[in-house]
Amino acid sequence: MSTRIITLLTDFGSEDYFVAAMKGVILTRSPKSVLVDITHAIPPQDVQAAAFTLRRVYPYFPTGSIHLAVIDPGVGSDRRPVLIDAAAHLFVGPDNGLFTLVLEEVPTARIRHLTNTAYFLPHRSSTFHGRDIFAPVAAALAEGVPPENFGPAIQDPARFQIMRSESMPDGSVAGRIIHIDHFGNCVTNLECDRLLPLLSTRSFYLQVREFQIRKLAGSYYEGAAQPGRPFLICGSAGLLEISIWSSSTAKELNFKLGEPVLLYTACIAHRPLEDL
Amino acid sequence: MSTRIITLLTDFGSEDYFVAAMKGVILTRSPKSVLVDITHAIPPQDVQAAAFTLRRVYPYFPTGSIHLAVIDPGVGSDRRPVLIDAAAHLFVGPDNGLFTLVLEEVPTARIRHLTNTAYFLPHRSSTFHGRDIFAPVAAALAEGVPPENFGPAIQDPARFQIMRSESMPDGSVAGRIIHIDHFGNCVTNLECDRLLPLLSTRSFYLQVREFQIRKLAGSYYEGAAQPGRPFLICGSAGLLEISIWSSSTAKELNFKLGEPVLLYTACIAHRPLEDL
Amino acid sequence: MSTRIITLLTDFGSEDYFVAAMKGVILTRSPKSVLVDITHAIPPQDVQAAAFTLRRVYPYFPTGSIHLAVIDPGVGSDRRPVLIDAAAHLFVGPDNGLFTLVLEEVPTARIRHLTNTAYFLPHRSSTFHGRDIFAPVAAALAEGVPPENFGPAIQDPARFQIMRSESMPDGSVAGRIIHIDHFGNCVTNLECDRLLPLLSTRSFYLQVREFQIRKLAGSYYEGAAQPGRPFLICGSAGLLEISIWSSSTAKELNFKLGEPVLLYTACIAHRPLEDL
Repeated sequence: MSTRIITLLTDFGSEDYFVAAMKGVILTRSPKSVLVDITHAIPPQDVQAAAFTLRRVYPYFPTGSIHLAVIDPGVGSDRRPVLIDAAAHLFVGPDNGLFTLVLEEVPTARIRHLTNTAYFLPHRSSTFHGRDIFAPVAAALAEGVPPENFGPAIQDPARFQIMRSESMPDGSVAGRIIHIDHFGNCVTNLECDRLLPLLSTRSFYLQVREFQIRKLAGSYYEGAAQPGRPFLICGSAGLLEISIWSSSTAKELNFKLGEPVLLYTACIAHRPLEDL
Repeated sequence: MSTRIITLLTDFGSEDYFVAAMKGVILTRSPKSVLVDITHAIPPQDVQAAAFTLRRVYPYFPTGSIHLAVIDPGVGSDRRPVLIDAAAHLFVGPDNGLFTLVLEEVPTARIRHLTNTAYFLPHRSSTFHGRDIFAPVAAALAEGVPPENFGPAIQDPARFQIMRSESMPDGSVAGRIIHIDHFGNCVTNLECDRLLPLLSTRSFYLQVREFQIRKLAGSYYEGAAQPGRPFLICGSAGLLEISIWSSSTAKELNFKLGEPVLLYTACIAHRPLEDL
Repeated sequence: MSTRIITLLTDFGSEDYFVAAMKGVILTRSPKSVLVDITHAIPPQDVQAAAFTLRRVYPYFPTGSIHLAVIDPGVGSDRRPVLIDAAAHLFVGPDNGLFTLVLEEVPTARIRHLTNTAYFLPHRSSTFHGRDIFAPVAAALAEGVPPENFGPAIQDPARFQIMRSESMPDGSVAGRIIHIDHFGNCVTNLECDRLLPLLSTRSFYLQVREFQIRKLAGSYYEGAAQPGRPFLICGSAGLLEISIWSSSTAKELNFKLGEPVLLYTACIAHRPLEDL
């Protein structure tokens, strides 16, 4: 049995003993597992934020990795604990939408309801399934227990409605700010793959509230030429971001999560393309 | 020699190089040790908060684990550095009360004064014993050096006075809020084991300032039925907590650490049991 | 090939997936590497703060360690990615001054421009070289690829001007506050090695704005004798610090990073040595 990586993603913060209790449970049952924190600073109970983070990071881990994700407002209710096998990555956590973006990307994923209590801690609280159910299941997976041992396959995992960008009748593309990162960059749901070819051949602007953003930078550093001015950039998540050189866009322009954005390109623009 | 786990618990924060310096010292001297952070966000110099966290988390680690705890306002004074062997777990840190709750739980614990400087860094500062004394001692333990090599046994470790719940003459139980977690849940020192049998057979309320809390939920999710309303729950630490669904109790009700709570049960209640 | 330590130092914060993506890349390519976080809370784009932290911590790691440092405001510009071999430690990151203090300490360091794209991720963004260039290079180093394979030696690494303490014509020593730690201690650039002999034989005071600090404590605890009063101490970084017992000096006295300090000793003092 080779060493297995177990990643941890929670909204538990880092000031309590919660995350360490999970790690203690795992290392007791699977001493050679390698533990890697994704983050424990997901906003409390924000399943969608966690789904975004998980989707963006898991492909950088080796296949066979086990991803333990515990954002679990329904702990103690009848929401199911689940195990997902998707593209040779394993995911363990509550069935509350956390895995929506993974399931969208890997339609062939197999999902199981964790019903075999033999793999749980013997005494289970109704408040901390991360420690009592998900951590020991992850440890058992790391020790080579096959997925089918944990419970029956299911076909109806919980999913939230994905906020997608939309092509509008006038040819513009409507999206939203779906993530604000540590630097204050505002990540939209406009996909680079789809839009960069368009932006490279047409004039365009992105309307966000009263702002019209016309510059597409190839790197953050290009934005340094016009300090204080927002620009677009294709970020590391493959999504269009709004940035300001050496500054927090979110703070400077007071942009919020969920803020609508609208991308106009030249041949469809109904407004004059003045400079910002 | 099998791999040993060394946990780290400090008030050093995570923005400085302090924790990493300790880890570097350990890995230099014990390259195969597995390091696990408990937390480094203990409020500066709050020995009691650290004692609470340590007590709640160490039992989830395998026996043989070494727990390095450095909340050390007296560094450089004559407070002793100690090693504690309790229930097959080893604890290393300053003798300032940090281990009070472990010692209470394990009366057979053996305590040693770390006097053998052969296991310390050759050059010791008077400001950072975490790096210069405790980390290299933990590494030596992980490498199999027996406890008796580090110094003589002592019988008088420092202890703080434990804040216990008390049965009052009128039959009520007086306690306090002893911890506020990342979600704002207010953890009291009322023990579930002792009180749940009582609460399941009698009517009751918990008085906290002007609030009377009457609901005992089996899970956080049960609290969702009455949004915004505080309820009691037996938390993952085995203690009664005050929670509000999807919200921070501490912020909503402005409850503070140390806040007194008083549990009345029906046959002894002197006040009418109106709803909150 | 023995296990190699890879340390990580960034300004990425801990709420995003950025650090975990780097770790995933490393563990995919070098599964046995041991990853140790220095900190990810360097103020955004503060190359000098990162240089300070790196310089203070790397010597505590075993030789052969690989130090991955990504504070990279110029990502996507023509700033070079570099590899530095200094005193048997390896450093990987952008050539923007990050390694100034290491290079000053180890004048024999060999520096290479990372030009061999065979060791980078196949698809490289212009926004996240930590993941796409530096992490895979660190992994390759951990796997034993020799430094010369990564690119040609260079002689002109970027350096910032080091803020040094200066002897003034009147015999005083002028310095600055160059770091404020988690506890609010204000670390100056006055070196203990050089100044302690002086301070132990003469009367002295340190002038910081309107404050004259005259006490030199041997430990933080000594400061407890005069609560609320600032004192000097030789901190764990080998530099004079200004501290207040059990309190944040930076908050209490509103001292800022960069604040000038001036050390007067008795025979040169032009002002009466009243008590603070």
